Amino acid sequence: MSEAVANRLVARRGDILDRLKALIRAPSVSTDPAYADGMKAAREMLMARLREIGLSDVQLLEAGGQPAVYAAWNGAPGKPTLIIYGHYDVQPPDPLELWRTPPFEPTEQDGRLYGRGASDVKGSTTIAVETIAGFLEDGGALPVNVKLFLEGEEETGSPSLPKLIEKYRDLLQADAMISADGGRASTTVPTVTVGCRGITGLEFTLRTAKKDAHSGRVGGAVRNALHEMAKLIATLHEDTGRIRVAGFFDGAQPVTNAIRADAAALPFDEAGFYAELGAAPFGDPAYTVRERTTVQPTVEVNGMWGGYTGAGGKTVLPCEAHAKLTMRLVPGQDPARAKEAVRKHLEAHAPEGVTLEFSIRNSGSPAYSLAPDNKMLLAAERVVEQVAGRKPVRVRAGGTIPITALFQERLGFDTLIFGFAMPDEDVHAPNEFFRLSSLDEGLRTFPLLLTELGKLKPEDIRRKPA
Amino acid sequence: MSEAVANRLVARRGDILDRLKALIRAPSVSTDPAYADGMKAAREMLMARLREIGLSDVQLLEAGGQPAVYAAWNGAPGKPTLIIYGHYDVQPPDPLELWRTPPFEPTEQDGRLYGRGASDVKGSTTIAVETIAGFLEDGGALPVNVKLFLEGEEETGSPSLPKLIEKYRDLLQADAMISADGGRASTTVPTVTVGCRGITGLEFTLRTAKKDAHSGRVGGAVRNALHEMAKLIATLHEDTGRIRVAGFFDGAQPVTNAIRADAAALPFDEAGFYAELGAAPFGDPAYTVRERTTVQPTVEVNGMWGGYTGAGGKTVLPCEAHAKLTMRLVPGQDPARAKEAVRKHLEAHAPEGVTLEFSIRNSGSPAYSLAPDNKMLLAAERVVEQVAGRKPVRVRAGGTIPITALFQERLGFDTLIFGFAMPDEDVHAPNEFFRLSSLDEGLRTFPLLLTELGKLKPEDIRRKPA
Repeated sequence: MSEAVANRLVARRGDILDRLKALIRAPSVSTDPAYADGMKAAREMLMARLREIGLSDVQLLEAGGQPAVYAAWNGAPGKPTLIIYGHYDVQPPDPLELWRTPPFEPTEQDGRLYGRGASDVKGSTTIAVETIAGFLEDGGALPVNVKLFLEGEEETGSPSLPKLIEKYRDLLQADAMISADGGRASTTVPTVTVGCRGITGLEFTLRTAKKDAHSGRVGGAVRNALHEMAKLIATLHEDTGRIRVAGFFDGAQPVTNAIRADAAALPFDEAGFYAELGAAPFGDPAYTVRERTTVQPTVEVNGMWGGYTGAGGKTVLPCEAHAKLTMRLVPGQDPARAKEAVRKHLEAHAPEGVTLEFSIRNSGSPAYSLAPDNKMLLAAERVVEQVAGRKPVRVRAGGTIPITALFQERLGFDTLIFGFAMPDEDVHAPNEFFRLSSLDEGLRTFPLLLTELGKLKPEDIRRKPA
Repeated sequence: MSEAVANRLVARRGDILDRLKALIRAPSVSTDPAYADGMKAAREMLMARLREIGLSDVQLLEAGGQPAVYAAWNGAPGKPTLIIYGHYDVQPPDPLELWRTPPFEPTEQDGRLYGRGASDVKGSTTIAVETIAGFLEDGGALPVNVKLFLEGEEETGSPSLPKLIEKYRDLLQADAMISADGGRASTTVPTVTVGCRGITGLEFTLRTAKKDAHSGRVGGAVRNALHEMAKLIATLHEDTGRIRVAGFFDGAQPVTNAIRADAAALPFDEAGFYAELGAAPFGDPAYTVRERTTVQPTVEVNGMWGGYTGAGGKTVLPCEAHAKLTMRLVPGQDPARAKEAVRKHLEAHAPEGVTLEFSIRNSGSPAYSLAPDNKMLLAAERVVEQVAGRKPVRVRAGGTIPITALFQERLGFDTLIFGFAMPDEDVHAPNEFFRLSSLDEGLRTFPLLLTELGKLKPEDIRRKPA
């Protein structure tokens, strides 16, 4: 049955690729109001398709932020009900000048599809949607009940998701969730994901005076906001990259030998990792690269600016500087507490005459973990082994899928992370791409997964109290 | 005679103010090619006026950069020939959002004329031009020969000025120069300027990888360009603000007791200085505020940026960061050597895996000093005393007038700095203004100065070999 669906999907691969390209052409950047039209276009395209393939209750879920796209199919009584999660928003395309092809004009090259959102996560979202289409084609049926939930603000940290869950609590009842966001950990070894880091963040403005001044007239006797920002940011890490923020690690689960063994199970080419980025080896020497990027937290400045940044020069002594920070969290760290530790550190290290003003968007998401004996996880391992021809390695992801922790906390169910992106696809960076081979693999694998999950009882995949 | 000219000028103050406003309306930002039309408009307005008031040889002097406006009057045989210097270019208006009135729409408020360039230096340039007009009106004559030289790239460090001097060497022969750029040092005490700091600068890009990356996927194991930029900039100064760059002070004239006595001669309200800027006291405690800003050099970051700086957030790990620096120099420091010291410091403090790429616009200008017995200086003191009713204090300026050192080196003559800007007029910052009272003072004082200089012999004001 699922084989037939998979074959049918692969046979109409050209049509599916065209649908993915159309979705990439909608510039759905959620963080910047200038892209509101692109967000709307992506939503409407998805809703039209969901209606067309026979899903019911197609609607927008709204709670003040970017709306989510929702649709359902309830034709498998007694079978598990799964939320299938994806997101239609993408990261900003900046810096534009580093793209080799236009970010919103999907371009095939050497077996890759280039375009903003191709890998994160319109590719895997399209695979999920078209898998559902494949089952329902010609009056067919899905092996499970499905509630498709495509978020519109994943790339901005899902600020209104908690409110949205509250508002649509009944609609979002399910036994478990499958996330098409959160991909594979290796380009060569099959993997399944058992957890991911959390995230929190803050933004602040540093001030040293009430106005900019002439660097000749007052230079030498007035604090320069850029010097002060530099000194402040420099206090966050040791030279090795180790975090120096008091209280930041509070509650963090220690990196045990078992965790280290899990991290080591993935063959990981450290030299290749650095060569691909064109970067020198770096990071806390107490941990491997794989550990640094998955089981250790981070404090990262994503943007920093102030003074004159245009063409030529300007002899200004700037009174303001700005920084945007995000922190990746490991299991046990509380996002609000970790954020507060960073805020306190910055306040404590700002000298007299320097004031900080924080704008804090939302509290963030804790790290997420799936139990080792989770039946969805076991099913996923069987499916991946069947398609890849070898047993997958269990991995933790360095990125964050905020809904995993949030849905667990608010709706009480587990999430299986099951996307098809690969780790080198330059997501959140210029020249993002999705492998065309991943499209085929996804169209073969996703039907199998739904079929396997259809063999389980709802109570098999419901979360067990810890 | 000069009294009559001054009275005539003050009587048509309204017309002169309108001319100044028209000049401010031309957005002549030299550093940014987007303002090319504004530069052209300012040039054409000035050239039309210079022809109208009866100057000869009105022309543009060009040497690859922004052209200078030139005009001459040679009707006083045997009298000194003076270059009168001003500049028609202005600083960029950024940050625009901090202006309370449109930067290129001159606005009168509470005895002040707000607008970009009002104080630096369209106000004093207009005073110089209209003073010439006043003398020449109705077939009149100037007491000295005049060559008006209005530069178009003062705000970008005069990159093509050396070439321009070479090309127009014959045209620019003179006994001395008066600069309308470089104003008064106090709003309450009359001053004359006997020197100014020099300047040099550089810009660089810091790189840690060949591409931006996802802060979740690689964060913790890859150098963040913003962290590295912060650490690097933080090495430039001690916490007190003292410069930590080896070799930077090479050749700098020591701050002698005589220099300290000169600096102390200007009554200076340190508390008022900081209150006006809304800044806390800061700087090398070995020196007074006045010394820090005039007889000590600086290393100042004028702009610093990298990563995502738009609305909302972006979880990018940036591979690039940028900074623009300028250094103010004291007598004895060589601009090229000082710049090289900063470059070497940055290179030496960049860890392995961090590369720096410098773009160095021009070598800069050394500091400038006028001899204590210079006869132009003595004439200026007499004139200021006559108008202000008390003897002026001799001061050094913290800013830079690059042409002073350059003309001395290349053409062998001295410059008397004689402008009407005041130190609190927010030049190079939002809400720049020029006092309307300074317009009147300028129109009374400048004619007197030219008359006094006309009493001297050309050889009296020619530079004496050191």
